Amino acid sequence: MNFCDFPELAKVARGESAAEIVFRGGNVVNVFTGEVIQTSVAVTNGTVVGIGDQYVGETEIDLSGKYLCPGFLDGHLHLESTMVTPAELVEQAVQCGTTTYIVDPHEAANVSGAAGIDYILEETDDVPANVFVMMPSCVPSLPFEDNGCTFDAAEMQRYIDNPRVLGLGEVMDYVSTVGAAPAMVEKLALFDGMPKDGHAPGLSGKELNAYVLAGITNDHECSGFLEAMEKRRLGMHIHVREGSAARNLEPIVRGIVETKQDISGFSFCTDDKHIEDIHTEGHIDFCIRKAIACGMKPVDAIRMATINTARQYNLQHQVGAIAPGMQADFVVLDDLETVAVSKVFHKGVDVADFHAQPKLPMDSPLRRTMHSLPVQPEQLQLPVGESNDVIRVIPNEIVTGHDTVTLPQQDGLFVANAEFSKIAVVERHRNTGKVGVGAVAGFCIQGGAIASTVAHDSHNLSVIGDNDADMLLAIAHLREIGGGYTLVEHGKILSTVALPIMGLMSDAGFESVQKELSKMIAKAHEMGVPQDVSPLTLLSFLALPVIPALRITPRGLFDVEQMKFIQA
Amino acid sequence: MNFCDFPELAKVARGESAAEIVFRGGNVVNVFTGEVIQTSVAVTNGTVVGIGDQYVGETEIDLSGKYLCPGFLDGHLHLESTMVTPAELVEQAVQCGTTTYIVDPHEAANVSGAAGIDYILEETDDVPANVFVMMPSCVPSLPFEDNGCTFDAAEMQRYIDNPRVLGLGEVMDYVSTVGAAPAMVEKLALFDGMPKDGHAPGLSGKELNAYVLAGITNDHECSGFLEAMEKRRLGMHIHVREGSAARNLEPIVRGIVETKQDISGFSFCTDDKHIEDIHTEGHIDFCIRKAIACGMKPVDAIRMATINTARQYNLQHQVGAIAPGMQADFVVLDDLETVAVSKVFHKGVDVADFHAQPKLPMDSPLRRTMHSLPVQPEQLQLPVGESNDVIRVIPNEIVTGHDTVTLPQQDGLFVANAEFSKIAVVERHRNTGKVGVGAVAGFCIQGGAIASTVAHDSHNLSVIGDNDADMLLAIAHLREIGGGYTLVEHGKILSTVALPIMGLMSDAGFESVQKELSKMIAKAHEMGVPQDVSPLTLLSFLALPVIPALRITPRGLFDVEQMKFIQA
Repeated sequence: MNFCDFPELAKVARGESAAEIVFRGGNVVNVFTGEVIQTSVAVTNGTVVGIGDQYVGETEIDLSGKYLCPGFLDGHLHLESTMVTPAELVEQAVQCGTTTYIVDPHEAANVSGAAGIDYILEETDDVPANVFVMMPSCVPSLPFEDNGCTFDAAEMQRYIDNPRVLGLGEVMDYVSTVGAAPAMVEKLALFDGMPKDGHAPGLSGKELNAYVLAGITNDHECSGFLEAMEKRRLGMHIHVREGSAARNLEPIVRGIVETKQDISGFSFCTDDKHIEDIHTEGHIDFCIRKAIACGMKPVDAIRMATINTARQYNLQHQVGAIAPGMQADFVVLDDLETVAVSKVFHKGVDVADFHAQPKLPMDSPLRRTMHSLPVQPEQLQLPVGESNDVIRVIPNEIVTGHDTVTLPQQDGLFVANAEFSKIAVVERHRNTGKVGVGAVAGFCIQGGAIASTVAHDSHNLSVIGDNDADMLLAIAHLREIGGGYTLVEHGKILSTVALPIMGLMSDAGFESVQKELSKMIAKAHEMGVPQDVSPLTLLSFLALPVIPALRITPRGLFDVEQMKFIQA
Repeated sequence: MNFCDFPELAKVARGESAAEIVFRGGNVVNVFTGEVIQTSVAVTNGTVVGIGDQYVGETEIDLSGKYLCPGFLDGHLHLESTMVTPAELVEQAVQCGTTTYIVDPHEAANVSGAAGIDYILEETDDVPANVFVMMPSCVPSLPFEDNGCTFDAAEMQRYIDNPRVLGLGEVMDYVSTVGAAPAMVEKLALFDGMPKDGHAPGLSGKELNAYVLAGITNDHECSGFLEAMEKRRLGMHIHVREGSAARNLEPIVRGIVETKQDISGFSFCTDDKHIEDIHTEGHIDFCIRKAIACGMKPVDAIRMATINTARQYNLQHQVGAIAPGMQADFVVLDDLETVAVSKVFHKGVDVADFHAQPKLPMDSPLRRTMHSLPVQPEQLQLPVGESNDVIRVIPNEIVTGHDTVTLPQQDGLFVANAEFSKIAVVERHRNTGKVGVGAVAGFCIQGGAIASTVAHDSHNLSVIGDNDADMLLAIAHLREIGGGYTLVEHGKILSTVALPIMGLMSDAGFESVQKELSKMIAKAHEMGVPQDVSPLTLLSFLALPVIPALRITPRGLFDVEQMKFIQA
C-alpha cells in the first residue's frame, strides 16, 4: 500500500464506503495462525483493506466452496535462463499462482552488465506480478573468465536505493567470501544488513561459519535434509529448490516432516525451471503439491510458499499473506488436497488475460551481443599426444568425468569419431579471438555439429561436433544471427533457434521456440547423442568452470578439482 | 557486527587464529531449529564468530553441564516509569538475562519532549545491554492534555536515521489512527515500513482492520487468548505482557499450548515492571518460567523471549540467537526447568560487575521541570450541590467507578471525611496556574495528604487529602524539590521521595528510593488507605483521561466514557 492512500482506504476498512471488490465467503488460508477460516476479503486499489463478512463490495466475487491463498513467491530464480523474455516467463508462471519473483539476473549481467539488469527490471515492471531483483554478486564467476562484463560494487551502488532491488544475489564464489577477498568484501559490505543469497553446496564446518559470518542469509543449494539442518542451525534460511534439473524437495521435505522441524526457516524456489516444465507440471504450486505428497500439511506447504519467503526478503508487510495493508495477490484453489489453481489475482486483478508484448527496441544493443572474430579452420585443430585429458559425459548429470586417454588422431591432430567428439568454446563478447578446443567422450554426435551461445555463466559460444567444417558453419551462423542454438548436418543448417536478446532469449514466443527446440533435440539424438544425455543442457554447462571435474573455456581445458588450466 | 571487522573475524571463523573467548561445551539452545546441542561458541570482538568444538580461545569458559541461551529481549517497556534512572533499571534487569530492551520513552517525552528522549538515549548508550527506542506516538495522549511538550512528526524527523530508533511507539490513540486524523497520519507515514507498536485493548472487527491497515505491527494489550488470536489473524505480532500490574501471560500462553498454536508470532514484554518486582521474581526470565509452568516447552518459551522479538524489530541478524555475526549476548542457565540464571554476558563480557554511574549534570534543565505557580488556598475549594460526580476507587484496579452522590459540605464547599477525600491536579509544566479539583470515594486518607508528580501520561502534580492545608503543603514541597512523592500528616512532612529528574526519576539509587517508598506506603495505609488500594499507583493513574470511568485533569473532572469534561 502506498501510505498516501491510507485515509481513503481506512474509510473502507471502517465500513463507511464500499470496497471495490469483495472476495466473498471463501475458505481463507491464514498463514499467520495456520487456520482456514470461511470469511470475506475486501479489496480497494489493489490492497487488502479488511477481512470479515461485514464488508460490501461494488463488485463481489463468490468464492463459496473455494480456497483463497496468498499469491505464491519464488524465492530464487533466473528469469533469463528459459529462452523466452522475462515477461513471457512470468506470464506463464503467474497462471500457476506465483505472483512474486526474487530474481538474480546474473546471466544478463554476464553478457551485458548493468544494461542486462536494466533490461530485466524494465521488462518486468508492468507484468501482473512482483519482480524483485538481487544484485548478481559473481560476474564474472571466476577472475579468469572471458565474459561480457564485470559487475562490481561500484556498479551496484546505483541500484542500492531501487525499491525493487532487495539485496545481493547468490554468492557462488564462496572461496572469496570465506577468504574475505577485498572485491567480495566490498560487495558484501554494500549490502550489509540486507538479504544476501547464498549458493554453497556442501559447505560445512568452519568454512560455513565464515560464510554465515559474511552475512549470507539463505541457501538454495541443499540437496539433503542434513545439509539443510547444518545451515539452519547457523540461522540460514533454506530455499528448497525444485526446478527442471535440480530437484531437492523430496529429501528435505521428508526430513522436515519426519523430525517435525519448524518450517518457518524454509521456503521454495525453482532456480531454473524451463517453460515447458512450468507448462506441464506447474511452478511453486507444484512444490506445494509435492510437499503435501511428502506428508506435509497443506497449510504448512502454503506457508513455505508465501509468508516464509516474504519474511526472508523483508516483504512480509507487502506480500505473502492476506491481511489489511497487503497487496491483493491471491490464488484461488479448488481444494487443499490437489492444490488445483482455479484463478490468480495480482493487486486484485485477474491475471488470466495478460499477454506480454515484446518491449525491447529492434535497434537495442542488447540485440547485438555477438562480438567475436570469424574463426579460422586452424583454430579448431587440437594437437594430441599419447595421453590426453578428455571430458567424460555422465548420463543425466551436468557434472563430468575427467578421463585420460589416447585419442584417435592423424598427423598429431585429434580426429573425432563415434565415441570422441570435438568441443570448442569461442569468446564472443570482446573480439579477443580466443578459442578453446578439447575432446568430449560420450556425447557421440556424428555427421555434424551443435552449437549454443547459452553457456553458463560467461555465455560464450560452445560447439560440439565430429568435423571441423560443420562446427565452423555452426559458429558462423550463430555469429551472424546474434546468438541462439543451431544444429548442422553434413554442411547444412538443419535447425536454428535464434536467441537475439543477449544470445540468451527470444521474443518470438514460447511456442515457436519450443517447437523448434524439440525438433533440434530429437534430431541431435538421431545423430548419435544418447537418449540419457540432454544435448542442449549439457552444452550450456560444459563451459562453466565451477562444476567438477573437467570444463572448457576459451582459454582451454580447466581442471575444476585442481582449479587450474591444463597445459596443452 | 560492524562489517569492517569481517576480514579479521573471518580469520577466526576459518580457524586460522584463536578466538578471544570460547564458551566451551555447554548445551546450546538453538532457537532456529529448537534443538539443544552440546557444542562450543567462539567469540571475538563481542561477536559470535563460529560454533563448533574445533575452535580454540585465548580465554575459555567452561560451560559443561550448563545451558547457553541467547540474551533475552523485552519487546516493550517504559524505562522511566520505575523511578530509578534507565541505567539503574537496566543494571538490575540485565542480571536476569534481559540484554535487549525496546523502550518507549513516552513519560520522558510528555514532560520534556525531545530532551527527555535524548536523556533516555544518552543514559543508556553505554549500559551492558542494547537499548532501542520507539518514538512516542501520542504526546500528549489527548489533544486537551496539559502536558509538558507536544512531540509531533516534525520533531520525530531528526530521529529517523538513528540506528537505535526502530519505529513508532505504542499508538494508544486508536481513534485518531482508525479515523486517519491528519496529525496521526503524518506520524504513521513517517515510519511507513518500520515497526509500529500497537496499544489496542479490546479493539476488534472493522476498527481493528483499519488499525492494522495503518501499519501497526504488534500489540501488547491483549488480556486473553481469543483477543490475541483475532489480532494474530490479521498479522499482528503479540507481545505477551507480564509486568507489575498487568499480567496477561497465563491465559495467553495456556491458549497457545492448548491449541498448539505456532509461537512464531508471540513474544514477551514487561511494559511496566517495578524494580522491586524485578528484584524478587525476575524480568523476562520470569516470563519464561511462567510459560513453562503453563505447559510450554522450555525451548519455545526461550524462542518467544529471543528470536521472535528480534524479528518483530528487524534485529534478527544482530540479537536473539547464537550464530555467526550476531552479538555475543548470552544467558547461562543451570537447567531448562527452573531457568535459573547463572551468568549473563553482553557482547561477550560478564555483566555482573557493571554499576551505573549517574550521568545527568546537576545543572541540567531536566532537573528543573516544575514550572508551576504557587497554589492559593481558594484554588482548592470545591463548590458542590446536591448531586456531585465522584471518582470511586475500585480495590486492586486502576479503572474507577463514576458515582453521583451528595457530598459532605459546608457553606456550599466540599469537606472531606473518612469516605470522601479531596483530589487536586496542578498543572506543572507551563505555569498556567490550572488546578482541577474533585472528590474521590474509597481512598480514605485521614489527617493529611499524599502527592505525586508521577501522574500518567502528562505527569502533572496530583494530590489527595482530607484537608486543604496539608494538600497545599504537599504541593509546595514537591514544587520546591523538583518533583517526587510526599506524604504530609497534620502539617508535617513525614516522608518524601525526591524524583528530581523530570519529576519522574531519582539517581539516588534504588535502595534508598525503595526504602523510603515502603515507609510512605505503610504510613498511607496507617492513615486510612485500604490495604487493597495501592496509594501511589492509584495516584499516578487518576489523572489519565483514557482509562474509564472518571478522571481528573488540571481542567477538571473528565468523563472517559463520554469523552468530555464534566461542567462544574
